[in-house]
Amino acid sequence: MSEALARLRAALGERVDTGAETVEAARADRSGFRSAGAPLAVVHAESVADVQTVLRIAHATGTPVVTRGAGTGLAGGANAGPGEIALSLRRMTRILEVSPDDLLAVVEPGILNGDLDAALAPHGLWWAPDPASRAISTVGGNIATGAGGLLCAKYGVVRDAVLALDVVLADGRLIRTGHRSVKGVTGLDLTALLIGSEGTLGVVVGATLKLRRRVAGAVCTLTALFPDVRSAAAASAAVTAAGVQPAIMELLDAASVAAISALLRVPDVAAGAAQLTIQTDGPAAAAEADTIARVLREAGGRVALTADPEEGERLLAFRRAMHPAMETLGTALIEDVSVPRSRMAEMFDEIERVAREHDVVIPTVAHAGDGNLHPNFVFDGAEVPERVWAAADDLFRAALRLGGTLTGEHGVGVLKRRWLADELGDDQWRLQRDIAHVFDPRGILNPGKVFTP
Amino acid sequence: MSEALARLRAALGERVDTGAETVEAARADRSGFRSAGAPLAVVHAESVADVQTVLRIAHATGTPVVTRGAGTGLAGGANAGPGEIALSLRRMTRILEVSPDDLLAVVEPGILNGDLDAALAPHGLWWAPDPASRAISTVGGNIATGAGGLLCAKYGVVRDAVLALDVVLADGRLIRTGHRSVKGVTGLDLTALLIGSEGTLGVVVGATLKLRRRVAGAVCTLTALFPDVRSAAAASAAVTAAGVQPAIMELLDAASVAAISALLRVPDVAAGAAQLTIQTDGPAAAAEADTIARVLREAGGRVALTADPEEGERLLAFRRAMHPAMETLGTALIEDVSVPRSRMAEMFDEIERVAREHDVVIPTVAHAGDGNLHPNFVFDGAEVPERVWAAADDLFRAALRLGGTLTGEHGVGVLKRRWLADELGDDQWRLQRDIAHVFDPRGILNPGKVFTP
Repeated sequence: MSEALARLRAALGERVDTGAETVEAARADRSGFRSAGAPLAVVHAESVADVQTVLRIAHATGTPVVTRGAGTGLAGGANAGPGEIALSLRRMTRILEVSPDDLLAVVEPGILNGDLDAALAPHGLWWAPDPASRAISTVGGNIATGAGGLLCAKYGVVRDAVLALDVVLADGRLIRTGHRSVKGVTGLDLTALLIGSEGTLGVVVGATLKLRRRVAGAVCTLTALFPDVRSAAAASAAVTAAGVQPAIMELLDAASVAAISALLRVPDVAAGAAQLTIQTDGPAAAAEADTIARVLREAGGRVALTADPEEGERLLAFRRAMHPAMETLGTALIEDVSVPRSRMAEMFDEIERVAREHDVVIPTVAHAGDGNLHPNFVFDGAEVPERVWAAADDLFRAALRLGGTLTGEHGVGVLKRRWLADELGDDQWRLQRDIAHVFDPRGILNPGKVFTP
Repeated sequence: MSEALARLRAALGERVDTGAETVEAARADRSGFRSAGAPLAVVHAESVADVQTVLRIAHATGTPVVTRGAGTGLAGGANAGPGEIALSLRRMTRILEVSPDDLLAVVEPGILNGDLDAALAPHGLWWAPDPASRAISTVGGNIATGAGGLLCAKYGVVRDAVLALDVVLADGRLIRTGHRSVKGVTGLDLTALLIGSEGTLGVVVGATLKLRRRVAGAVCTLTALFPDVRSAAAASAAVTAAGVQPAIMELLDAASVAAISALLRVPDVAAGAAQLTIQTDGPAAAAEADTIARVLREAGGRVALTADPEEGERLLAFRRAMHPAMETLGTALIEDVSVPRSRMAEMFDEIERVAREHDVVIPTVAHAGDGNLHPNFVFDGAEVPERVWAAADDLFRAALRLGGTLTGEHGVGVLKRRWLADELGDDQWRLQRDIAHVFDPRGILNPGKVFTP
């Protein structure tokens, strides 16, 4: 037994789990990637003190630490390998404070996004970052990846919704970054730097979240079918140009619509049709929905509109069936490029080109309000084939050419580390790596992720 | 002539200004602080290449560089001293791009906030960060300090409204941080780290700003007089608790109201009265204003409400007269603490205590929606007397006790550097200083500011 494991056992007893199934599960997230082998152990931390103990031992023994939440990541950022400690925060689920007066909550990182939402609802409060994975993903994972979701164009990203963090540093010391107030500019904004840092700078053990009041009034839902993805993309741009701000605006391309239609046995969808699903909320929801319906019809869409919640849920169900529909096609590598809204139609052209040239099926769903696209590279078997990687490489470079980014909300992890310097440039890449080194001089925090070329 | 100055002259000619008045002006901002003496020169950069030239020469010769915009800072962060280069970006005022489709603008840092606003208005667009100094302060200064303003509770702070930055590093290299898309999590968020870094990490030479569409519809304005500041603070908390979100909610304490009433010759204000000024906007402006009027009356306020723009301007004029009113009292050290909204009444108690115990007059205006208070320490003469410093020290410590922060929006500069570690803790203070060192290994970027204890 390694010295690190012996010391962890002595300090943390049964919270150090070396069960074969547990360590095996810690090799993977939902990206389809697995590490080279099982980690030393999974430590189920139950307190800040537990996390500090793990980091002190890891620091003293030079043992790598891979922090994990629910393991729902899509970039391999939390996959733990041989010789590494998998530090699970999934048991740290307490809500330490909810303050309706200050519109904030203080939570532990392991709470599921959906559970937090359920706890805030009775207060009439809401934490806006709302990943599609909310039922199964943690707040800590949301912060570690800088995750996004469906509502970002209107309600912002994670970085806009975190006031302060409690962070255990690589050597076990605890710092508190940020503020409990809306404003605060004392020193450098380490809170923002830590958001999206994917476990490379420290371990987030507590978060002070900036809440909103729940949006009152009706929610209106629209769907619209278009003859092709370009016209659907143009229609979504026309919605934005009309000056209305939907809460949700999702675009499904033809391959996605076809797969979902087959799964749900929806008969009357024309071949090649693409679809928009849009929701409006707030005091102007009905007026905005009417404007949007007009814009979509003028753009050639076949529009359905409802203010009825049940009917709205029924319309949304089509979009929600994207992932199950992909599973009917094979294994999917879910990508995550983001481009300026105005370049979205061009990005769809590029996806079509990449699919054709590399002979890969790439059904794509986009958060059309913010230009974030999720191309699903479909293949057979468990391993990503080389031609899919070649296609993904082509796709990433296309996104960069269009002024876009490799990853809108999933993170870099292991999946995209080899393209990181392409986007950042060598000077910035080195600068970022040197900053990470200040936090983690011994290189024990999630090594091999993000900054390993 | 120093080597640095000779090389600057050779490279940049007349843009290197050693005129006595110019270098003298670069010693100060609007904080009331002056550096120990005039800088070597003021360089009026006109392009990114000019800035790179300055930094290359500064780096080669080990000469400190103090970046300046319009010199309207309130913390001494841009004051340049002996042996230093004052690098003025005030001539870099171009708007390089406005994209209504992508809701972004790319600008040079020297443009005034007000000029940018005027240029965006015809597009129906708006950059929300709106400091009270907008007519005289630059976008670059706004970014360097992480400035706030009156609208932050509803529309966010600078950090929420910048997508990407072009930054010249300490040795003259240029990097581009961030994204043109709403979402993007590729690597560490250096954009956010640079915002509010007060010239210690690099020189921002370009900014991609996240715009909003201008808010349509009527703006409603309310004022309400209360018998004392505690009841006004309680009323502002009741407004927030009622679930409405004003665009503006300003609180003037009794000393401020008295000084403004005297200046504007408003006769009918009772002694000891405090005032709230509130604006609502957006589709629910009228309904929200009605709710707020009811809440304020129930809280004991004497309320005026109007949807007429001219009458609204007249009501706002009282709040706008705060600074001129302070000038009638003497010299003012304008402070900038921020506390959680729920602690604002306690903070006013603390201000009253500090004023009494240190025998200082401290009229205070607060952005009540976000808990940011500006106590004005009034004194005679140009130099801040020691008893005022002692009072400010007492006040800062009170803000920290209440879970608040030293500075909500003005920054640390020289004014608050000695309290920085009190708020951050020693571990985080050292971590921040080490991060700054990665950006600036030779220590030439704004030395003596922020991280100098």
